[in-house]
Amino acid sequence: MTAGHVPPIVDSFLEKVRQALYEQGLLFRGARVLAGVSGGPDSTALVHVLSRLQKEFALQLGVAHVNHCLRGEESDRDALFVQELANSLDVPFHMETVDVAAARKESGLSLEEAAREARKAFFSRAMQEHGYDFVALGHHADDNAEWMLISLIRGAGAGGLSGIPPVNGKTVRPLFKLTRKEILKYCRENALKWVQDSTNQDQSILRNQIRLHLLPILESQYNPAIVPGLNRLSNILREEHLWMDGMARDFLEDHAKPIKNGLELSLVHLVKQPLALQRRIVLQAMAEVRGNTRKTSWTHVHDVLKLACQGKSGSQVHLPDGLEARRVQRKLEFILHDSPDWARTPSQPAKEWRVVLDGPGTHQIPQAGLTLVCYEEEKTENFLLKEDPMEVCMDLERASFPLTFRPWRPGDRFTPLGAGGAQKVKKFLIDHKVPAQDRQNIYVLTNEETVLWLVGQRLAEPAKILSETRRILRCKVFLA
Amino acid sequence: MTAGHVPPIVDSFLEKVRQALYEQGLLFRGARVLAGVSGGPDSTALVHVLSRLQKEFALQLGVAHVNHCLRGEESDRDALFVQELANSLDVPFHMETVDVAAARKESGLSLEEAAREARKAFFSRAMQEHGYDFVALGHHADDNAEWMLISLIRGAGAGGLSGIPPVNGKTVRPLFKLTRKEILKYCRENALKWVQDSTNQDQSILRNQIRLHLLPILESQYNPAIVPGLNRLSNILREEHLWMDGMARDFLEDHAKPIKNGLELSLVHLVKQPLALQRRIVLQAMAEVRGNTRKTSWTHVHDVLKLACQGKSGSQVHLPDGLEARRVQRKLEFILHDSPDWARTPSQPAKEWRVVLDGPGTHQIPQAGLTLVCYEEEKTENFLLKEDPMEVCMDLERASFPLTFRPWRPGDRFTPLGAGGAQKVKKFLIDHKVPAQDRQNIYVLTNEETVLWLVGQRLAEPAKILSETRRILRCKVFLA
Repeated sequence: MTAGHVPPIVDSFLEKVRQALYEQGLLFRGARVLAGVSGGPDSTALVHVLSRLQKEFALQLGVAHVNHCLRGEESDRDALFVQELANSLDVPFHMETVDVAAARKESGLSLEEAAREARKAFFSRAMQEHGYDFVALGHHADDNAEWMLISLIRGAGAGGLSGIPPVNGKTVRPLFKLTRKEILKYCRENALKWVQDSTNQDQSILRNQIRLHLLPILESQYNPAIVPGLNRLSNILREEHLWMDGMARDFLEDHAKPIKNGLELSLVHLVKQPLALQRRIVLQAMAEVRGNTRKTSWTHVHDVLKLACQGKSGSQVHLPDGLEARRVQRKLEFILHDSPDWARTPSQPAKEWRVVLDGPGTHQIPQAGLTLVCYEEEKTENFLLKEDPMEVCMDLERASFPLTFRPWRPGDRFTPLGAGGAQKVKKFLIDHKVPAQDRQNIYVLTNEETVLWLVGQRLAEPAKILSETRRILRCKVFLA
Repeated sequence: MTAGHVPPIVDSFLEKVRQALYEQGLLFRGARVLAGVSGGPDSTALVHVLSRLQKEFALQLGVAHVNHCLRGEESDRDALFVQELANSLDVPFHMETVDVAAARKESGLSLEEAAREARKAFFSRAMQEHGYDFVALGHHADDNAEWMLISLIRGAGAGGLSGIPPVNGKTVRPLFKLTRKEILKYCRENALKWVQDSTNQDQSILRNQIRLHLLPILESQYNPAIVPGLNRLSNILREEHLWMDGMARDFLEDHAKPIKNGLELSLVHLVKQPLALQRRIVLQAMAEVRGNTRKTSWTHVHDVLKLACQGKSGSQVHLPDGLEARRVQRKLEFILHDSPDWARTPSQPAKEWRVVLDGPGTHQIPQAGLTLVCYEEEKTENFLLKEDPMEVCMDLERASFPLTFRPWRPGDRFTPLGAGGAQKVKKFLIDHKVPAQDRQNIYVLTNEETVLWLVGQRLAEPAKILSETRRILRCKVFLA
């Protein structure tokens, strides 16, 4: 290909991808690369540009597509489109059909999370079966900026703010330096067709709200260069995050000892470290014992460090998913309880507490490591209920203040929305497969003694919105 | 004072301040504390609550106020108000009157920066003269959240994102855990009066835009608990920032050697460090040699590290304010040139380059470490020109594309807005006291050979907006 045959912008796009492959060492020469393709402009441009670089890098390219069956005919249309794209580029095509909506019910994940998990699982299987070395995804600079804003809004620490990494294990993102605009331009200039995912316009999804609403405000009214700015910040924070996590890992290698179902840390060494390192050591110890940091909040880290500094031998902190931190002499133990009954043994009774809420506003609930936000609003024609188990809308007249937030108790009964009758909370949790070790972290919002919301699980019938409802109480729970 | 005499909310406010003083070790018992008081609700509540804690902490309290003379009679009214407040609390009152607008013209700072510098200078003088140990300021949790958003929008790194520290040298912020709402409630419940600063409503000031516009959007549409979330993040990032900076300082202590007008670093040790630490070492070396990190951008750090890894002996990078990084054998030297002529010696000619801009958009200018953003807009009745030397509005018809961005050249002439005639750029820079070592970092935006903007200094007459102007080209420069 000589320069004269291609308009300059195309070369600049190709050049940026080429640079990313070389400079960031995303792929090695001769690598087998499976491109994850949804059929949208990003992944369409990705597989097109990779096929143009195929010879130069001696790549063996494949295309993978997951049909999530979430959008009916539209989903099938997309699958066909991607298959034809792969054929036109003369690249092997791998597809799987997953009923995400069904799979989701079992896992308790959100639709988005469940779809992502399904893709990850299929990509990983396809890599193994067909001998691919890498999965290439079409994430770009705007995606990363959006992700950083999401993290910021959700209250993430430095980890979340370090953004989407260009390379993460066997996953590579060759378009990470390109913007959405550059990608669309590339598609147009190369006469590429793509399909539109109708859910991209769904403003009940936070990611879409950020893309369609918040980012345009920031760009037009605050800093037109906010996307490159956020990408620069993500690069800085990511390197710092990797470095600090490395130091925490080194510390654990030197000073943590495996014990039954967990590990123990020498306190003498822990408390000598700078506070920032202590926090990362605790986070990583929890992740190591439990396998992930899901549900771990700032309050948990804070509580464990307080236990380390001020706790007496024998005192403990209960953490999500059956994890426990215990002070034993001059050591801190992290133990994962796999027995479903551990939290109900007499030595660890659930503490009795309640927080009374006098009115709307932001309520800190340190006992649960949560923040509860309540606010009133008019009921409009199509009031927006986000697809988020941590948020509910209730009829304000029937859910009137004062309200009480507290852990559920074995005697609690409630009428789940749509269930047609009252039942024990305990039965509901068992029927809905909430693992025993998680049940101690379930809370209720009540009005006098009526349960209005089994938090994170189900609204109760008495709180539901009716056609005659005029004002709404919206409640949302955040990790504190 | 017994609990019964005080409404509960007042106690909770007092309790939070007391906790901050104890737990964060903001003050020692018997400390002499000078409260900086503007007369607004925050600093009024601050001095009131400190006076209530005076006995308990054996504090010796004083009040300081700077009259910036920026708002005419309103400024004098505020000064009188603060004096009366101090009298009513029986606390010594220290005041200084500074003509900030005049002082600003000499320094080249923005009005806000100049006012802050004037306050800092007066507080520091008053502390010395009257033997105070601390200055207490009224910054609170909302201020910190706003500051973090400002940093994010301006494209700061982890340093800026770590927010306003509760304690910084001799400056303490006893209200850092309180929200604006809690402070106003405290003022009302204690029947405190305060004065309103009319510039708080001025939306051309970024801080006010964030407070009055962006933060309310984030709170109402994204996360009502964003303020506590940002404060938590600031706490995490601040501790990590302190820790990492400590490591960079340790490295410099071990591996940097002072040389004439600067310091030298052994490359063997530098390149062995993680990238994140290398970046912080370079930033800190620059700060040490130059006394500050103003004008230091990400690109400068990047360029110095490239010099360290790939530069030949003898190659160098020019940095702002007369700083130079030079590769000498297996060492990196940072040298501050105090001779105004260093940048013009034959060994360091200014490089010739130009960037041609074909249309509006975001233009990276790596040669200058800058991003230039241009966009077109309709001229409205009161179009907004921010008080920012890095931003201009031009008549789009007279400043039409293609435009050129390049360093100024000794032969350049231009007609400064309002100056009544053409002159040499060189003469303008000398007349306006731009230090010789900074003159190599001055750029021009031109249309063919006409200078439209001496960037960061002055718009040119040919680009100015006229009554008949219909469309505007707004250009803004950011550190890349």
